[in-house]
Amino acid sequence: MILWNEATAIEKQKALLRPAVKQSQSVQTATAAILEQVKEQGDKALLNLAQQFDKRSNARLLVPHAEIAQASSLLTTELKTAIDIAYNNIKQFHQAQQPKALKIETTPGVVCELKYQAIAAVGIYVPGGSAPLPSSVLMQGVLAQLAGAQTIVLATPVKGSETINPAILYAAQLCGITTIVEAGGAGAIAAMAFGTESVPKVFKIFGPGNSFVTMAKQLVAQQVPGLAIDMPAGPSEVLVIADERANPEFIAADLLSQAEHGEDSQVVLVTNSANIIEAAQVALSKQLNNLSRKDIAGAALENSSFILVDSIEQAFEVSAQYGPEHLILQLGDATPYLDLVKNAGSVFVGDFTPESAGDYASGTNHVLPTYGYSQVYSSLNLLDFYRTYTIQTISKSGLTELAKAILPLAAAEGLDAHGKAVSIRLESIVND
Amino acid sequence: MILWNEATAIEKQKALLRPAVKQSQSVQTATAAILEQVKEQGDKALLNLAQQFDKRSNARLLVPHAEIAQASSLLTTELKTAIDIAYNNIKQFHQAQQPKALKIETTPGVVCELKYQAIAAVGIYVPGGSAPLPSSVLMQGVLAQLAGAQTIVLATPVKGSETINPAILYAAQLCGITTIVEAGGAGAIAAMAFGTESVPKVFKIFGPGNSFVTMAKQLVAQQVPGLAIDMPAGPSEVLVIADERANPEFIAADLLSQAEHGEDSQVVLVTNSANIIEAAQVALSKQLNNLSRKDIAGAALENSSFILVDSIEQAFEVSAQYGPEHLILQLGDATPYLDLVKNAGSVFVGDFTPESAGDYASGTNHVLPTYGYSQVYSSLNLLDFYRTYTIQTISKSGLTELAKAILPLAAAEGLDAHGKAVSIRLESIVND
Repeated sequence: MILWNEATAIEKQKALLRPAVKQSQSVQTATAAILEQVKEQGDKALLNLAQQFDKRSNARLLVPHAEIAQASSLLTTELKTAIDIAYNNIKQFHQAQQPKALKIETTPGVVCELKYQAIAAVGIYVPGGSAPLPSSVLMQGVLAQLAGAQTIVLATPVKGSETINPAILYAAQLCGITTIVEAGGAGAIAAMAFGTESVPKVFKIFGPGNSFVTMAKQLVAQQVPGLAIDMPAGPSEVLVIADERANPEFIAADLLSQAEHGEDSQVVLVTNSANIIEAAQVALSKQLNNLSRKDIAGAALENSSFILVDSIEQAFEVSAQYGPEHLILQLGDATPYLDLVKNAGSVFVGDFTPESAGDYASGTNHVLPTYGYSQVYSSLNLLDFYRTYTIQTISKSGLTELAKAILPLAAAEGLDAHGKAVSIRLESIVND
Repeated sequence: MILWNEATAIEKQKALLRPAVKQSQSVQTATAAILEQVKEQGDKALLNLAQQFDKRSNARLLVPHAEIAQASSLLTTELKTAIDIAYNNIKQFHQAQQPKALKIETTPGVVCELKYQAIAAVGIYVPGGSAPLPSSVLMQGVLAQLAGAQTIVLATPVKGSETINPAILYAAQLCGITTIVEAGGAGAIAAMAFGTESVPKVFKIFGPGNSFVTMAKQLVAQQVPGLAIDMPAGPSEVLVIADERANPEFIAADLLSQAEHGEDSQVVLVTNSANIIEAAQVALSKQLNNLSRKDIAGAALENSSFILVDSIEQAFEVSAQYGPEHLILQLGDATPYLDLVKNAGSVFVGDFTPESAGDYASGTNHVLPTYGYSQVYSSLNLLDFYRTYTIQTISKSGLTELAKAILPLAAAEGLDAHGKAVSIRLESIVND
């Protein structure tokens, strides 16, 4: 526990310090080599990589459409319903974000428009690892579907003789995704960035992954003109602000649901009640023991911070300074404080709004800025699947009026031809 | 001239090939060293760099507020009016882009919100070079002002014993910018990224620049957690689509106003009329000779392409393939074709809408994706100065309903604690 008002600047900094992310030169070198292989050899390289890293025994890269269509029949009714509910809520919230084109006349005869174009081809990476992640498919796939991307490629690794989990295939089917690539890691990112015989080239790549995936995304964004990536990915994190009336068991459950994500996850509790800190810590120890991932969660708790502040207002200052991916407000009435929220990815208000609601099903997106990026990066939203462009249409009289701005500015900037493009037109108007 | 329908795939590719951008290792090494110096030594390093690269004779870094306030009195009435008109039009068009918060109930008792937060501190880089660029200040500063950034830092280089041009200072003043740094190049980017004694640290850096500035932006975005940059910058470019009734003099003037930007600028004319190509080339030679920057424009014209297509529809296909920063439509009636516009940064419709109108004063932004990035990146817009985040507020009954999605998904993903954070709350509801 740290008493915020008695802590030195260095102690405060330490309490909010994130575990360092390793960006080793060896990861960069290995990733660059994989990118080169896939760029040069396409499918052949992808298959070699799958054999090498995932011990794949079969030689296919794309999931047959029939297998996608059959996936739902392999799910329990409960899981299918769960995916359906999540899909519908995520769809509702993101459909409400559909952008509207804008058209205004800034000067009589000068009409300016802002328009939206769906990014035509997008790639979605879904990590493999210890469990299938259908939620990760939905949180990206629904948006691509709503924006109307013409090409959506989903890539996810498959180990040994396994096939892709039907929950992932069903989630993809709901999102209208028909191109599903059984490949993971840097190779999958390279395939989507450069294109191969089987994998269409995309213009923007979304999705989290391990350090090789993250490095691959960074490298292809630099190497391939016209390619974008979503946002920098870091370890997951939560900050809970609780008042003295909060339920310590709920607090502990929320901290643990963050901690179980990975050993580098970070959890922070900020409260104006020493009792709450004490009770939450007791509840944590108790609940931890019942978790299947208790080793991971236990390791993550070693990066945890318990901060005692003087007031709830001060708790929001600490939160703004940290910039949490997830901010949970276990407050009797959070309403008066919502204007104090700064630099948070997603906010969970009230005792009955656990982080896992947003992770899966409330409708908000679970792809959020981490690692302090929440001061500048957005939560994933529908506009990430669009680009904007502008149109202007100017009449003769409009141009005559605008010339009063264009000609002196072009002259001041020493750009003759810019002025000439206007004056040559003005002359033609006079000669009409 | 290239006949599109008779060209081979390689000839087509060559006609739309952009001049290569050099990304030399030596630029990276030199830039990294400058970043390190500024990070370590702050103001002292900035002053040393100004002496070394800009032959600065005075030792100040910030423009005194009185100097900013006096700038307008040093301008001609014409230039002051020009800046005022441009400011007002840009402000109108971007003010209309103010985002609205969103709030919907995805499930009874589950309220989801999307909110906007201005990026608190932004940096704007304005290149120096052969002329002052007040338009570059407006195209970025107006947006920062409208979003309500608390801190706006403007950096621009100053040579020898000069001071910053009053047109730049006046444009900055209109945008409410009070922190103006007399420093350029990679050093200025580093100062805004890391902060120095005089220069506030910012969270997002905007603005074009030479290869050192571009490299510095890329490097600080990688090095500094929580820092973002606007978009990759490449050489400027225009593609004109013209029909047989277009005015060849107007076409030539538009091509030249692009070509005079720099030797690596690129201009492309696509038309269904061989006569138009011939007449535009004659007009080009004639107009070129009267330009003060004719050497630059002449060199840029060596990268130009003149493409003859069968139909205007096909011209739009060529344009979509190229993805031009600026797309000019000199067509009798462009309306039926506007749905064919793809991968363009900004579109100029009709004979009396020259590119220079958008460069300065129509109201649209002149910071646009180049170099093929227009298939995925947006024209600079007000949302680039905001970030979005989400809020969810869930009632007891809302959580009970959502549990049908959360519990099976958490189980499928092997995340016990995610489920537990819900079930522990459901138990307390039952026990109410």
